[in-house]
Amino acid sequence: MKVAKFGGSSLSSASQIIKVANIIRNDSNIRFVVVSAPGKRNDSDIKITDLLIALHTNHSIGISTTSIENQIIDRYQQIAVELDINVAIVKEFQAQLHDLLQTITNSDRLLDALKSCGEDFNAQLISQYFNKIGLEAEYKSPEAMGIFVTDEPGNAQLLKESYAKIATHKDSEKVLVIPGFFGVSKQRNIVTFSRGGSDITGAIIARGVEADIYENYTDQSHIYSAHPGIVKNPHAINEITYREMRELAYSGFGIFHDEALTPLYEVRIPIQIKNTNAPEIVGTKIVVDRGEVKKYPVIGVSGDEGFISVTIKRYLLNREVGYTRRLLQIFEDHDINVEHIPTGIDDISVVMRANQFEHNNKLEELLEDIEQQFEPEWIHVEKDLAIIAIVGEGMRDTIGIANKATAAFADSNISLRMINQGASEISMFFAIPSKDLKKALNNLYQNYFEK
Amino acid sequence: MKVAKFGGSSLSSASQIIKVANIIRNDSNIRFVVVSAPGKRNDSDIKITDLLIALHTNHSIGISTTSIENQIIDRYQQIAVELDINVAIVKEFQAQLHDLLQTITNSDRLLDALKSCGEDFNAQLISQYFNKIGLEAEYKSPEAMGIFVTDEPGNAQLLKESYAKIATHKDSEKVLVIPGFFGVSKQRNIVTFSRGGSDITGAIIARGVEADIYENYTDQSHIYSAHPGIVKNPHAINEITYREMRELAYSGFGIFHDEALTPLYEVRIPIQIKNTNAPEIVGTKIVVDRGEVKKYPVIGVSGDEGFISVTIKRYLLNREVGYTRRLLQIFEDHDINVEHIPTGIDDISVVMRANQFEHNNKLEELLEDIEQQFEPEWIHVEKDLAIIAIVGEGMRDTIGIANKATAAFADSNISLRMINQGASEISMFFAIPSKDLKKALNNLYQNYFEK
Repeated sequence: MKVAKFGGSSLSSASQIIKVANIIRNDSNIRFVVVSAPGKRNDSDIKITDLLIALHTNHSIGISTTSIENQIIDRYQQIAVELDINVAIVKEFQAQLHDLLQTITNSDRLLDALKSCGEDFNAQLISQYFNKIGLEAEYKSPEAMGIFVTDEPGNAQLLKESYAKIATHKDSEKVLVIPGFFGVSKQRNIVTFSRGGSDITGAIIARGVEADIYENYTDQSHIYSAHPGIVKNPHAINEITYREMRELAYSGFGIFHDEALTPLYEVRIPIQIKNTNAPEIVGTKIVVDRGEVKKYPVIGVSGDEGFISVTIKRYLLNREVGYTRRLLQIFEDHDINVEHIPTGIDDISVVMRANQFEHNNKLEELLEDIEQQFEPEWIHVEKDLAIIAIVGEGMRDTIGIANKATAAFADSNISLRMINQGASEISMFFAIPSKDLKKALNNLYQNYFEK
Repeated sequence: MKVAKFGGSSLSSASQIIKVANIIRNDSNIRFVVVSAPGKRNDSDIKITDLLIALHTNHSIGISTTSIENQIIDRYQQIAVELDINVAIVKEFQAQLHDLLQTITNSDRLLDALKSCGEDFNAQLISQYFNKIGLEAEYKSPEAMGIFVTDEPGNAQLLKESYAKIATHKDSEKVLVIPGFFGVSKQRNIVTFSRGGSDITGAIIARGVEADIYENYTDQSHIYSAHPGIVKNPHAINEITYREMRELAYSGFGIFHDEALTPLYEVRIPIQIKNTNAPEIVGTKIVVDRGEVKKYPVIGVSGDEGFISVTIKRYLLNREVGYTRRLLQIFEDHDINVEHIPTGIDDISVVMRANQFEHNNKLEELLEDIEQQFEPEWIHVEKDLAIIAIVGEGMRDTIGIANKATAAFADSNISLRMINQGASEISMFFAIPSKDLKKALNNLYQNYFEK
């Protein structure tokens, strides 16, 4: 039994929804369908969710909301007309929006409630369409499904007891259509998830009903071994582990949010990446353990810009007990998340994302504190660093993985600012100047996959 | 102007002392001579310092000390006779030993006082011999020189005001002969240095009198680019920086103790390694900045066994703010010094010296605490690790340094357990299985220096 989640681009128009219906019709194992709000139909289009946020903004500052409301309702109206279903339902959507705007006075609560409409209306429309074409389906709100969450607006966390409630829907004879992106709190407020949106709902449902697999439909069939925008024609990955994906995601791959992966990882339910526009392609499977680890020790290479390093040096630093912990405490006091901590004997580098220093004098204040507490001989900041990750579960048992990487850097005349490989050996990180990122990724890809 | 320090093997017998006298005679720039106690004359010999410690032990437990006392006195007597100087001085040494044993009741104080005699007697003998052969010299006790230290037995720390006092001897017309290894406290106790012995005294005097260079005479002419016991005929180093030496010393090179280097590093006085038995050889110079950094980016490779790593893994570990600091706190609570901390996304390894776990259940207790405080999915301990250091001030600006290393490991089929290179890039560390250490060092040496 499967849970299928469809992303915004898969549900952006009537023609896309027809594709989705065909997918469900052709696979009787799909018993639960989690839907997003209608996404962009083309590059200049606006997502329904963004329109709903704009509606909230205009309402808050007292500007007329009629025009935006009309845009939202027109979009659903057009889908309903093209799908040839009763447009009475769209009138109800309009009434519901009005109702929310008039009854909810707390601005944060209103924003959550409005945002949830994108998915909620879509689920109702789609359920109606399924029934019209003879696919027995039923719309289920998150409340009806039992998705109970914490009460902080925009930051819903699932309450564990939800799984038992969701499980009661396990043997539904109808296909259940569920809006993604939000749950309901014990105080009966609608609360949206902070990140990962509908992916989280899909994962929660899949876990709750103990699905064999969670199919995640977008407009991509695969995860690739390198970023297709940087490396020309990288090969598609058939199977990747959760941990490999997470290490790759760290530096550039952005298909899933962690929140969406955790519920499934814990109970070892695999995720199948599927393409709504080409459902015949098997796609990439995300699993807990993968086969062919020996044949493909490295699964992918990725890289991201926007890192910065701070290095301090002091003669005999290494002899002070606890200096690393004390240094990290300073970063923590300044609310800076640290990524890597390569150490020498009398020096230590701290590598982190540079966007944490965007505001005010955060970097200067941090450096001042380090200066005062450590009195280093030398403190050096290096900006514009990129981090490259080489990832694969089979790296540990394969000799020469590091050598292929360092050869790629040396051959392309790239200076290595940091190397970090730990004992778990599922990944290896290199810091290089940002300007060399493209060249480095291309050469690495060649060394691992083409030679 | 130079300060010269002579080690135990350089002063173990009359014939060695004659060599030392010739060195002083041939270099009128040497104005201060710091001496060790007589060392071993051959492999089965016993150092005077060890005899003095045994004297203390026997005295403490109430066993007759006559035999050991005689051995000590006989040794000085033999030197005096062979140097043809008045043996009356040796009688004074014997009286002084007796006096100490009878007057000092505190055992730790007595030990320090007895140990200091090794250097002190030798300095007196040598000074007398210098004068006999027409080399105008004067014995100066640490107290007379102004070497004032803290009062904890066996753990003397120099008091900074000493330098000004030492400086008053700067223009002495005679060559001053000073015993190494100890100073005097404000309470007028003799206190020995904890480590580094006479090297520290030499460094302190060199700094106090603002020497141009500190010559350190032992039975070696050079520091080598790899351990001669492991790599066959490694090349001698002409110039090495303080920091390079410290990074190399970390994993196997053991010529100097840090305490002995610090006073000189701070004021940029270079150290010249010299061989008493071959003073015509220039030897290795230790400097703050060296030339030829571009020509020889790597100065040496070294390695040491006896490391252990603890790796913990938990999905989403990376998202917890401050987890590294919290983990290091546990190690600190267990009094464990940590050497390297390679990090992945959801795993972190801690590498440290294994000898810290020799007693009781220290490792088990540490792991239990980690288990409780982190609830990792997976905790892995790897024993029998060796750490290899590749060191050189020029590494930062040279492409391909890492590649030569990883090539050496890959070619010798060695699995890399950890790689650590930070932004200061004066060193690069690799953890490998201990069994592969010899092979790795030999291949690395070849890759850096022979190809």
